[in-house]
Amino acid sequence: MTVRLGLLGAGRIGKVHAAAIAAIPAAKLVAVADAFPDAAKALAASSGAEVRDADAIMAADDIDAVLITTPTDLHATMIEQAAKAGKAIFCEKPIDLDVERVRACLAVVAKHGVPLMVGFNRRFDPNFVEVRRQIDAGTIGKVEMVSITSRDPAPPPADYIKRSGGLFRDMTIHDFDMARFLLGEEPVSVFASASVLVDPEIGELGDYDSASIVLTTKSGRIAQISNTRRASYGYDQRIEVLGEKGLVSADNLRATNVEIANSTGYLREPLLNFFMTRYTEAYRAEISAFIATIVSGAPVSPTGEDGLRALLLAEAALKSAKEKRVVEIAA
Amino acid sequence: MTVRLGLLGAGRIGKVHAAAIAAIPAAKLVAVADAFPDAAKALAASSGAEVRDADAIMAADDIDAVLITTPTDLHATMIEQAAKAGKAIFCEKPIDLDVERVRACLAVVAKHGVPLMVGFNRRFDPNFVEVRRQIDAGTIGKVEMVSITSRDPAPPPADYIKRSGGLFRDMTIHDFDMARFLLGEEPVSVFASASVLVDPEIGELGDYDSASIVLTTKSGRIAQISNTRRASYGYDQRIEVLGEKGLVSADNLRATNVEIANSTGYLREPLLNFFMTRYTEAYRAEISAFIATIVSGAPVSPTGEDGLRALLLAEAALKSAKEKRVVEIAA
Amino acid sequence: MTVRLGLLGAGRIGKVHAAAIAAIPAAKLVAVADAFPDAAKALAASSGAEVRDADAIMAADDIDAVLITTPTDLHATMIEQAAKAGKAIFCEKPIDLDVERVRACLAVVAKHGVPLMVGFNRRFDPNFVEVRRQIDAGTIGKVEMVSITSRDPAPPPADYIKRSGGLFRDMTIHDFDMARFLLGEEPVSVFASASVLVDPEIGELGDYDSASIVLTTKSGRIAQISNTRRASYGYDQRIEVLGEKGLVSADNLRATNVEIANSTGYLREPLLNFFMTRYTEAYRAEISAFIATIVSGAPVSPTGEDGLRALLLAEAALKSAKEKRVVEIAA
Amino acid sequence: MTVRLGLLGAGRIGKVHAAAIAAIPAAKLVAVADAFPDAAKALAASSGAEVRDADAIMAADDIDAVLITTPTDLHATMIEQAAKAGKAIFCEKPIDLDVERVRACLAVVAKHGVPLMVGFNRRFDPNFVEVRRQIDAGTIGKVEMVSITSRDPAPPPADYIKRSGGLFRDMTIHDFDMARFLLGEEPVSVFASASVLVDPEIGELGDYDSASIVLTTKSGRIAQISNTRRASYGYDQRIEVLGEKGLVSADNLRATNVEIANSTGYLREPLLNFFMTRYTEAYRAEISAFIATIVSGAPVSPTGEDGLRALLLAEAALKSAKEKRVVEIAA
Repeated sequence: MTVRLGLLGAGRIGKVHAAAIAAIPAAKLVAVADAFPDAAKALAASSGAEVRDADAIMAADDIDAVLITTPTDLHATMIEQAAKAGKAIFCEKPIDLDVERVRACLAVVAKHGVPLMVGFNRRFDPNFVEVRRQIDAGTIGKVEMVSITSRDPAPPPADYIKRSGGLFRDMTIHDFDMARFLLGEEPVSVFASASVLVDPEIGELGDYDSASIVLTTKSGRIAQISNTRRASYGYDQRIEVLGEKGLVSADNLRATNVEIANSTGYLREPLLNFFMTRYTEAYRAEISAFIATIVSGAPVSPTGEDGLRALLLAEAALKSAKEKRVVEIAA
Repeated sequence: MTVRLGLLGAGRIGKVHAAAIAAIPAAKLVAVADAFPDAAKALAASSGAEVRDADAIMAADDIDAVLITTPTDLHATMIEQAAKAGKAIFCEKPIDLDVERVRACLAVVAKHGVPLMVGFNRRFDPNFVEVRRQIDAGTIGKVEMVSITSRDPAPPPADYIKRSGGLFRDMTIHDFDMARFLLGEEPVSVFASASVLVDPEIGELGDYDSASIVLTTKSGRIAQISNTRRASYGYDQRIEVLGEKGLVSADNLRATNVEIANSTGYLREPLLNFFMTRYTEAYRAEISAFIATIVSGAPVSPTGEDGLRALLLAEAALKSAKEKRVVEIAA
Repeated sequence: MTVRLGLLGAGRIGKVHAAAIAAIPAAKLVAVADAFPDAAKALAASSGAEVRDADAIMAADDIDAVLITTPTDLHATMIEQAAKAGKAIFCEKPIDLDVERVRACLAVVAKHGVPLMVGFNRRFDPNFVEVRRQIDAGTIGKVEMVSITSRDPAPPPADYIKRSGGLFRDMTIHDFDMARFLLGEEPVSVFASASVLVDPEIGELGDYDSASIVLTTKSGRIAQISNTRRASYGYDQRIEVLGEKGLVSADNLRATNVEIANSTGYLREPLLNFFMTRYTEAYRAEISAFIATIVSGAPVSPTGEDGLRALLLAEAALKSAKEKRVVEIAA
Repeated sequence: MTVRLGLLGAGRIGKVHAAAIAAIPAAKLVAVADAFPDAAKALAASSGAEVRDADAIMAADDIDAVLITTPTDLHATMIEQAAKAGKAIFCEKPIDLDVERVRACLAVVAKHGVPLMVGFNRRFDPNFVEVRRQIDAGTIGKVEMVSITSRDPAPPPADYIKRSGGLFRDMTIHDFDMARFLLGEEPVSVFASASVLVDPEIGELGDYDSASIVLTTKSGRIAQISNTRRASYGYDQRIEVLGEKGLVSADNLRATNVEIANSTGYLREPLLNFFMTRYTEAYRAEISAFIATIVSGAPVSPTGEDGLRALLLAEAALKSAKEKRVVEIAA
């Protein structure tokens, strides 16, 4: 079986996914749509696909599944449209910045019974996959505490900040999903201390650039997340999980492991400092997993529900930071 | 000048300090007291000192300074007695488990104008000293976030837990002091999520064994602390400080740096797993610093006020964990 | 310009190169040949190329360059045939196991003035490229000593050993090339101590499985190489270069950087243990470099002369090991 | 039992040993001798010993053992004198720079049946002890290859070079001993490539400053040693032992394990760069072991024979480097 795909959005991530599809024998990119015709044309040409408009892709008989990589404000509508057309759906996170809109969208998906996978790509990073595999294998026993260090190399432009939904919904949302992926239980309370330490303009836009978040589950498992929009040494993405029998951790990645030693000391290069370079393998594996579930009929993961859960944590964190109090959430 | 010392308490820590004194040319241990005469006698013999009772040490003309390493409930009274006698004082942490008692004690010390140094030994660990030195040198610019991982290898006996003052006053208190040492600003709010994940008996005693704590300063600097009473891989003592220009971190210590590689992987030994082994150098350097300040007349550090501040943070953390809310503290 | 390629040999390495070509916009695989028609057919199908026989590829007007990935005993003849046909040539190492045959072959290549690149893929490994880049940038000053640790995870089958030309010509040859790549001067003497420590059958075949080799240049720079056919912990590929101003080194690679800590210690996974996984990036970069030189007209590197030099070092090492003496070679 | 000691030589190493003795309950430093009366006086005063002249120490009834830390040219004579006086002997390496003189000296020691321990302090370094312990425990199976990286931070003064016996007898001798300690078999052949790359003056004195040495045992086990007199990054002291089942290695030591990360990369401090700091623990453990063997009557190790063996390897290496050939030695 070959899964025939339509790609909605020919931007940066769209290109990454198109390249991933090209390397999967069981998948074929049939058509590409983009609001900018030149972008669609260029990507279609390099990937051997046609240019179609989004509606045509949704309606097409020769397309089994769609990948939605458009701007966030189009996600929910496109998901609904694809669900109604009976397509399997992969959508970049978030489904929407508004919780109620997400719930409505998921109801449509549920009604039409199509698979919906949300693009929490980090679940597919080989390092984090291995951390989870060790947990599942019982290596560290019962999980007790999760520590996530998640730091961007540099803040995005103000224009992006404005549309992003803010630190928690834009950046921490990946960490909320990762915490859920590793905790093995749903958080029931959230505390966030958030500050503007990097760039006053971010504060003027009503957002934060630095935060420490604590999630607690019903049985008392604890996840702590450390975020900043500026890490001069690269894209800092580390995970540690403490269990009753031990600790499993995933360290950062570099382009090479060359070290220079002289009278100043021993110097290794900074970390990979771009998310698309850092998570190259994760993006590939994510699309492979999506294709594989369509082929096998197995349930997709992460689901729309996972997208909703992470968003609820982000909302709670925002409330916590603003109101300087612990916020409880339904498990 | 030779600083003539009286040691009050010939237990485990008392012995460590006596050995440190023996290696300091400017110091001489004159007398040792202990409620157990045999303990005092043995330590006096091995260190070339006399056995005297505590009152005699306090009153002695041939003693310039005292080291108080008795059980906690005797600390405040002995500090006051020594202050009245005009002795310079080194006292193990905490001054007392009760904040008001500490305030009263510090008032006596202040009235008599004697130096009082509190035994936060970790400030003298060569690794943490170097972290602080790099901060002071401007290497990472303005401090933004501090991360402290502080995990005991195994829980203490129930009997100890009962007398300890609980996780925050007994164990985290070191981390509170370290956070203050590194943040460069006083915390104004505390949040603690605390659980019983390791040993139900600890919970039955009203204490916690696992916690994640977030401290926030007025300008928004954030410290996060991860504590547990059980780390199967050793005594986990790590620090990271993020600043605008970079990150400075101190990693754990091992007895050797031997590694074994085979088909299972690459194996390094567990961490040093006993606080007296892990902080051997810190204990030595702490007593050296105490002696040096007496000789030079420079102010001691950490002070009784530092002891009080750390205790206030511990109290606030306890209240936060119990009442599941953020607790503000006066800066 | 698009470089049109013919691939001679559809085996393991042939497939790797075909995949590399597919990702290079400036290159197109036109035809594939293999003694096993099914192998040629399968690779041609998956890479959008035609099946042709080797002679047809050599004679073809629509092919600019050939990649020779056949068994070693066909290399020299095919290189000569391609040179006479005016094709640019990429050939896997070695050109031949016999030095005189190599010289004769290179004479033909020289006469016809075609570019010949030899497949010392390690020169294109991103880590080793970075080591060389640091040397060229003057980071460590004048090179003094090179240390190469090069260990296979497990010995090849006896059948392979027989045809391989032996440890020095088959395995160490890569290290000889790397030593030359890093030393910045030609070795003028070789000493090799070689043993049979891993598998007596290797000794019965007249070969060695363990060796330590020292190369010395005219000015006294020294390279040492440590080889074994069995490293239980994976494919051990490390380089260190000491210069007057410092040391630059490249460490091994793993699939993930996950670490597990428990009472046994801290465990990282074994090394990548297959040369095609370890050198994935190197193989890609090597073919990219070949294509780029054809497009630009720049000289290829490494050349046939590099292939010859490495083989001369291998011959000298073999003589050294057998005769237990230092062997000089013309610089 | 208390071992009563006489110290012959109150220089740098003498002081280190005096401090070690002070911390050993079973040992007492009774007397110190030195050609410079002030040096003897100062060390005697600080260690509670008397000043005596060397002959008096040799003849004393109240001294059980001597530590010889005089200049090298006095070692053999003093060993003989002490042996005749029935003292247990600890002597710094080397016994003498001349093989025949060493043999004669050892004959005297043998005749008088006193224990003689030679100061190969590295055998007592906790890291190298652990490497050997793992070998003895069978962790890596049969030993196959040993790699020793041994590099001084900076060359000694010309004056020292002149009296030193040269690179192999002065510096590599420690590595020859370590190789023997780890190989489990005696080397039967030596090859050394030695150069003057660091300082031409060293060459003018007839010595080398850089060398790579290969030792081979009868069964084909191989040790390689990399030496230089200049490592800008510190005192580089690493060991790796490859066995049939795995690799055991000991990495370098630093004063702290602090790391600084910024846009330049991740920087750790240079290595400990002074042999007395790097081997502090080794010096202590060495004297403890000497005292313990006297108390227990167990055989000392390393012995005078070990001192001779290492010297024979140094002689062979020198001949190999000079004559550019492999040198065989009796097993």
